[in-house]
Amino acid sequence: MQIITSIKEMQDFSNRVRREAKTIVLVPTMGFLHLGHLSLMEEGRRRGDLLVISIFVNPTQFGAGEDYEDYPRDTERDQQLAEEKGVEVIFAPTAAEMYPSTYQTYVDVEKVTKNLCGISRPTHFRGVTTVVVKLFNIVKPHVAIFGEKDFQQLVTIRQMVSDLNLDIEIVGMPICREEDGLAMSSRNKYLNPDERGAALSLSRSLKFASELFKKGERKAEEIIREVKRIIEAEKLVQIDYVKICDTTTLRDIEHIDQEAVLALAVNIGKARLIDNIVLNQDNEDTDLPR
Amino acid sequence: MQIITSIKEMQDFSNRVRREAKTIVLVPTMGFLHLGHLSLMEEGRRRGDLLVISIFVNPTQFGAGEDYEDYPRDTERDQQLAEEKGVEVIFAPTAAEMYPSTYQTYVDVEKVTKNLCGISRPTHFRGVTTVVVKLFNIVKPHVAIFGEKDFQQLVTIRQMVSDLNLDIEIVGMPICREEDGLAMSSRNKYLNPDERGAALSLSRSLKFASELFKKGERKAEEIIREVKRIIEAEKLVQIDYVKICDTTTLRDIEHIDQEAVLALAVNIGKARLIDNIVLNQDNEDTDLPR
Repeated sequence: MQIITSIKEMQDFSNRVRREAKTIVLVPTMGFLHLGHLSLMEEGRRRGDLLVISIFVNPTQFGAGEDYEDYPRDTERDQQLAEEKGVEVIFAPTAAEMYPSTYQTYVDVEKVTKNLCGISRPTHFRGVTTVVVKLFNIVKPHVAIFGEKDFQQLVTIRQMVSDLNLDIEIVGMPICREEDGLAMSSRNKYLNPDERGAALSLSRSLKFASELFKKGERKAEEIIREVKRIIEAEKLVQIDYVKICDTTTLRDIEHIDQEAVLALAVNIGKARLIDNIVLNQDNEDTDLPR
Repeated sequence: MQIITSIKEMQDFSNRVRREAKTIVLVPTMGFLHLGHLSLMEEGRRRGDLLVISIFVNPTQFGAGEDYEDYPRDTERDQQLAEEKGVEVIFAPTAAEMYPSTYQTYVDVEKVTKNLCGISRPTHFRGVTTVVVKLFNIVKPHVAIFGEKDFQQLVTIRQMVSDLNLDIEIVGMPICREEDGLAMSSRNKYLNPDERGAALSLSRSLKFASELFKKGERKAEEIIREVKRIIEAEKLVQIDYVKICDTTTLRDIEHIDQEAVLALAVNIGKARLIDNIVLNQDNEDTDLPR
């Protein structure tokens, strides 16, 4: 396994691999890898010849007062896990390499970024789309893999790839959960034991919503009320939003007659956590995956 | 010569050419080709194996009330001229193919687009950078060639290419002028004979400025005053701006002690015309090229 920190070196490497007609797969990460990331790498291993992961805690997707400085990092462990999963290259640039002092270009996806997390994090997705375009231009993948926990991020990237005619296949992978249902996230590290217990209300509420939906409930308002009731019973949890949206436009919907996503964000202590479930009556797989 | 209108077909074509290790050169145009465009194609022919031009009058770079509808078009003549210059592919998509109804992604270069034309055309460069990124992702060139008449456009594209890590060489080519000095532009077609005569004040004023500079004048204010004096003598010409800027940041400069660009924009009848000259004391070539 190689660790490449230079943009030019990564591009040259990928150019050579492409000339050999090999398929490059990229899994972009911010490091502090967990089983969710590893499931993306396993899928990546299946889908291509060269598996590259990027590890870059991207400053432009953090707002003022957010946890950029504190975001958990463990380079040594990340490298070991990546190697075990058959990763050939870790691309791990510095912030100065990615954003020189004259930097001034940003990619904006206008509509799908406005709702959900876009309300309380108005500059977040612009940072995400910008760094993802940069990573695509540097690593030059044929396929890129993202987790569905960041559902709005995945929808935004799909929209951007379509709009900018990026010739890259985007693959979304199901949320990975702990045994007790908590969606895996590097930010779970922030939780103390009490907060960790309170955080279980998220997956519990989604499970309950899924059952309501299966029993025939189609009114978004009713489902959202039940989800909020379950979460609000936990005093350590502050809800940012609970919404039901169209899975492509991410606009709020009142009555679920198309595929919808029930998405939520909460603050618990210093952790901001998100979770979601897709509600689709034609799909039996609306249970929370483990 | 092939004419390709489908994005997918163009990408497939370019993928095949790249697998043969051939160099693709792109000359992006809005059609209604003149000798300026042809000089870019000649340079393109020298620099690569496959010469592609795009012909697309890009709606997103025209502001409200600008000349999108009236922009001159002559497809048949364009095709003939391109074929004569050894162009292998014309990529000529429809606006609906480039901007489907769900379109919502834009690329913004923030600083270098603010001055000069960015003042009176605040959304212009965003349209330019967005379509250029799309064309790059569709045609997948190794080299792309732009004219220096659109000096701010060239600076903006260079900044974007650097910031987004696009692995493409950007080549700028000198302004082509008519025998009498008028910079070639598709919009010269809008000029009636009186306006055409008045438009000569642009190149005449730049020529005078270049002579002042060679004689040792370094105060931007003095040079700009002389340029305005010459142009304002023409009653048919309304000045938008005359400025002297750093050639990289495009910030106004007061004293010319680095390479600078003297750039101007005017309105003559329904035509908005631009012109410029680079002032560089280490470079003898500050005369207006013919």
